[in-house]
Amino acid sequence: MTMRIGQGFDAHRFMGTDGTEPHMERELWLAGVRWDVEGLAIEGDSDGDVAVHALIDAFLAAAGLGDIGSLFGVGKTSRGAGMHGADMLRDTVEHLRSHGYTPQSASVVIIGNRPKIGPRREQAASVLSRIAGCPISVTATTTDHMGFTGRGEGVAAIANALVDA
Amino acid sequence: MTMRIGQGFDAHRFMGTDGTEPHMERELWLAGVRWDVEGLAIEGDSDGDVAVHALIDAFLAAAGLGDIGSLFGVGKTSRGAGMHGADMLRDTVEHLRSHGYTPQSASVVIIGNRPKIGPRREQAASVLSRIAGCPISVTATTTDHMGFTGRGEGVAAIANALVDA
Amino acid sequence: MTMRIGQGFDAHRFMGTDGTEPHMERELWLAGVRWDVEGLAIEGDSDGDVAVHALIDAFLAAAGLGDIGSLFGVGKTSRGAGMHGADMLRDTVEHLRSHGYTPQSASVVIIGNRPKIGPRREQAASVLSRIAGCPISVTATTTDHMGFTGRGEGVAAIANALVDA
Repeated sequence: MTMRIGQGFDAHRFMGTDGTEPHMERELWLAGVRWDVEGLAIEGDSDGDVAVHALIDAFLAAAGLGDIGSLFGVGKTSRGAGMHGADMLRDTVEHLRSHGYTPQSASVVIIGNRPKIGPRREQAASVLSRIAGCPISVTATTTDHMGFTGRGEGVAAIANALVDA
Repeated sequence: MTMRIGQGFDAHRFMGTDGTEPHMERELWLAGVRWDVEGLAIEGDSDGDVAVHALIDAFLAAAGLGDIGSLFGVGKTSRGAGMHGADMLRDTVEHLRSHGYTPQSASVVIIGNRPKIGPRREQAASVLSRIAGCPISVTATTTDHMGFTGRGEGVAAIANALVDA
Repeated sequence: MTMRIGQGFDAHRFMGTDGTEPHMERELWLAGVRWDVEGLAIEGDSDGDVAVHALIDAFLAAAGLGDIGSLFGVGKTSRGAGMHGADMLRDTVEHLRSHGYTPQSASVVIIGNRPKIGPRREQAASVLSRIAGCPISVTATTTDHMGFTGRGEGVAAIANALVDA
């Protein structure tokens, strides 16, 4: 049995930051859980959950099984359109297992001003770990008002993962 | 014994780049060592050592023991206020060990124009490795004058870590 | 035998985005393969292959053998000047092996608008994996028109690697 490593990254724009109106009705999903922050939502054909997307890419990269685009497609008519991150992660883990890979451990850093992750960090980690069947850590940080995350234009996530082959 | 992976990221502003006066008296600490670059310092409630902060988050994430904010607090009255990165790393490693985790290996990339890391890269790696009791690598790169690090507004760091559970 | 982890990052500017004329004759190399996108090239003393540079830094960091600058030098008269990423990766892996380290697995995320990586992702991964003698994954993402990669100023890459010591 050998261990393999994967890297993931994703970034999405908050709705309304490109000059369009914010979509007040769109739910905010991040790290597999729903956040209730008035007027805040993330763009994307799926639910825009950058944390889960980065984790999925890290798992797929570790297994050498492509990336989120090759598994779920891209665009509004893709299989991933409208899907929640949690469901995409569940499918990803099944995909890995069906190819002989076992998720072993993963971690994701959310980079952004909002939502405030700390109070629900453990809840999110617990939800994601249960889905993946292995420990997944969720942490968060800001960029001191620098760059696109610092200006509040959007949110990014960096993830890594280990799988057994 | 299983191995677990963690990801860390941090970014801080150089002092004075937000329009305030640079604090000429503040020491510049990065990657666990003090740098003597005239007029250059990093903001932060602690010593602003983004490299060590990213490493700490990577270690804590790997062990599933929260993040630097949950361990050291946030703000000017927190436990971490005024602390040096080296001391925070020492506390972090003790925290891991007391919970049954052993730091196994870690690595951090410093992203920024200044200070020039190369000449003291090995010294910094040696200081951090000794504190953590495992190999820690320090590398550095720039962003070709692009983005907030390229404009010299601040410095960022990406880290990863492995721990034995 | 112990496993060690490394992190890598690199970012380069597309030619012409700093106000100078694009160099139409310069080939575009990324992730070890040549891309035929009219007028698009990446700056750099070497071939500017940020994906391979990030992977090299991840491997060197994992082995504690410095970074791409210490191995290949910096600037137009360095050993790395004009070198292709694939050749630099080959040298890096030989360097690791000669010091008793065995590349075990690696992964790189390319962050940028262009070129469109998807259609040739598997080819690039195959080329790099063959050179390194271990599985290397290549994935790609964008930043939703945010930041320097989103504005098309350049391209970045984040990599991680495992080596056996």
